[in-house]
Amino acid sequence: MQPLWEQVTIVGVGLIGGSLGMALRKKGLAKSVIGVDVREKILDTAVEMEAIDRGIVDLQAGVAEADLVVLATPICTSVRILTEIAPFLKKGCVVTDVGSTKNLIVETAARIMPEGTVFVGGHPMAGSEQAGVNGADLYLFENAVHILTVMPGTPEEPVQKLKQTVNSIGARVLEMNPVQHDFLVAGISHLPHIVAAALVNTVGRLHKDYPDILGLAAGGFRDTTRIASGHPLMWRDICTTNKEQILEVLKIFKETLNEMEAMIDNCDEEGIEAEFNRAREIRRGIPARMKGYLPVLYEIIIYVPDRPGVIAGIASLLGEAGINISDIEIMRVKEGEGGSIRLGFGSAEDQEKALTLFRENNIKAKIKL
Amino acid sequence: MQPLWEQVTIVGVGLIGGSLGMALRKKGLAKSVIGVDVREKILDTAVEMEAIDRGIVDLQAGVAEADLVVLATPICTSVRILTEIAPFLKKGCVVTDVGSTKNLIVETAARIMPEGTVFVGGHPMAGSEQAGVNGADLYLFENAVHILTVMPGTPEEPVQKLKQTVNSIGARVLEMNPVQHDFLVAGISHLPHIVAAALVNTVGRLHKDYPDILGLAAGGFRDTTRIASGHPLMWRDICTTNKEQILEVLKIFKETLNEMEAMIDNCDEEGIEAEFNRAREIRRGIPARMKGYLPVLYEIIIYVPDRPGVIAGIASLLGEAGINISDIEIMRVKEGEGGSIRLGFGSAEDQEKALTLFRENNIKAKIKL
Repeated sequence: MQPLWEQVTIVGVGLIGGSLGMALRKKGLAKSVIGVDVREKILDTAVEMEAIDRGIVDLQAGVAEADLVVLATPICTSVRILTEIAPFLKKGCVVTDVGSTKNLIVETAARIMPEGTVFVGGHPMAGSEQAGVNGADLYLFENAVHILTVMPGTPEEPVQKLKQTVNSIGARVLEMNPVQHDFLVAGISHLPHIVAAALVNTVGRLHKDYPDILGLAAGGFRDTTRIASGHPLMWRDICTTNKEQILEVLKIFKETLNEMEAMIDNCDEEGIEAEFNRAREIRRGIPARMKGYLPVLYEIIIYVPDRPGVIAGIASLLGEAGINISDIEIMRVKEGEGGSIRLGFGSAEDQEKALTLFRENNIKAKIKL
Repeated sequence: MQPLWEQVTIVGVGLIGGSLGMALRKKGLAKSVIGVDVREKILDTAVEMEAIDRGIVDLQAGVAEADLVVLATPICTSVRILTEIAPFLKKGCVVTDVGSTKNLIVETAARIMPEGTVFVGGHPMAGSEQAGVNGADLYLFENAVHILTVMPGTPEEPVQKLKQTVNSIGARVLEMNPVQHDFLVAGISHLPHIVAAALVNTVGRLHKDYPDILGLAAGGFRDTTRIASGHPLMWRDICTTNKEQILEVLKIFKETLNEMEAMIDNCDEEGIEAEFNRAREIRRGIPARMKGYLPVLYEIIIYVPDRPGVIAGIASLLGEAGINISDIEIMRVKEGEGGSIRLGFGSAEDQEKALTLFRENNIKAKIKL
């Protein structure tokens, strides 16, 4: 691809910044990708990982020649950095960010961006449990929604270039105004994070009287509270920059919870069942988890012995038959004995072919309904 | 293995009952495994899936000859069935259950079990998103904690047989008194389920004004609320039979949440950060998710093209080198192009060997830290 940008400067080379650098470089979207970070060692790692062409510690020098600057630090830091770099941006420079709240930075940008430069807020809805550049992943943005807050009066051309860039790294652009964005993410992201942290801290309180509780909390509890391990600084910034919206959804959540509490207190069996039924129905309406392709619909569970080469055998069998494995998960294993593996296929036809193949080869297999 | 039981009767052949039948049969723990269910079709499926030897619709006939009866229905149903079958149990019969609350059924059993029979409450802490016998899995109990509520005065011999049975299907017995059990699971299981349902129903309320919200709720939100899809009837029974304990932990949760809300309202940055830090620390103390083996510690991420046979190639490479793949996950894929795969190994040595192997074969690989 013809490079869209001469120089992209990514400020903050962590999980998102690093992944973005990898994707931009792989796609040839920029003639050079510069990383700016206060941590020199991180910059070295990022160069090694092919996330950036080179690193610069000096912020002003790092952005001076850029025609695209991406702020990839916690929001309050990004707002501060935007204020610092604004006077040094070159004519025509486009600045975007990756923060989880948009209103504050968009309002700040409207006040301080010099004439001839453009700010468009961004929020790639992609992440990972792994923080830092070591967790960076070339494919992090594949099929992720990437929100852009294009404000009235923003010139058309840089917006188009930015959209093309986002599309080229595999994400899907969704335009939204900052206020609406902040309310929606308060509901589907900030509220669940705060609630997850409160759940974990509740178990922490119980831990004092019941030291066994953490040992029992494996499995489901750990899954449910995965997001409570998010970066505390990032979450501090989210809570302070999106205060009003978070308080509003928290209020609705507490009302909902209080209603359920009252039903439990009153032994209202019908009410409880209806609440759980409603949750199940609503959740069914949420698109299935995406991993870069459409939801895996055609799945098979197989039971195999646990020994080196067994996955190779299965995969060869399918590969030779031209069947692509879209998803694979080792479900449960008894070491040295055997286990169950879930395989996902892109079509009912592949699923059927795989099932026949397994049965012909005496591999215990069943369709996952 | 020498069968421990002449006839095991499983009442309720769903996910847990079916998985248990599979494991008992596979391990040769019973001369025959009988399934009792009101749904004849389910019994046929269970026979086909080798979960039971044969099915009986008639409850009384099903349990009359059993020396072990396992009640695997929602709790209130199990309590009712226990009352119904008690007069028909043969001398020496042991009855256990798999319910998520223990106090009610243990108290009921103490009142109604005939002399010469024994009740020991059980709670296998294993489950799956899939309900029903179709989701049954031979390895469901591998490394799962299986709580037994052994009451003072229970004869030693049947308890030992039951423990041996539980151990033989791969689970780990943990003895606990019913009251303590019910409080612990209220904290680590019931509270998160109720909160997850309330989270989903909050988003459902917001959906009316913001129809876009469900589309954005993919990924993290879906993961976090996975448990909200639990069986409504089962959860109704849990909420009614464990009311006091649930209300007590709900109170602590609401206090915790209110404190966080106040910090957000007051822009108490230090407090918010500390809460998220605390949650992260506590969560680190929770044993990592178990899939039948110890936590996977040695992981590698590789980047490969997306085409049939690619996983076969990788797996063959490792299999031929005698390296066992303990875990595999397709992380992100760009269809027709490539993607990242996470591989887990049981030792640092295997990880190192795999990394060398990948690099020798020009497969882009890095250690996941």
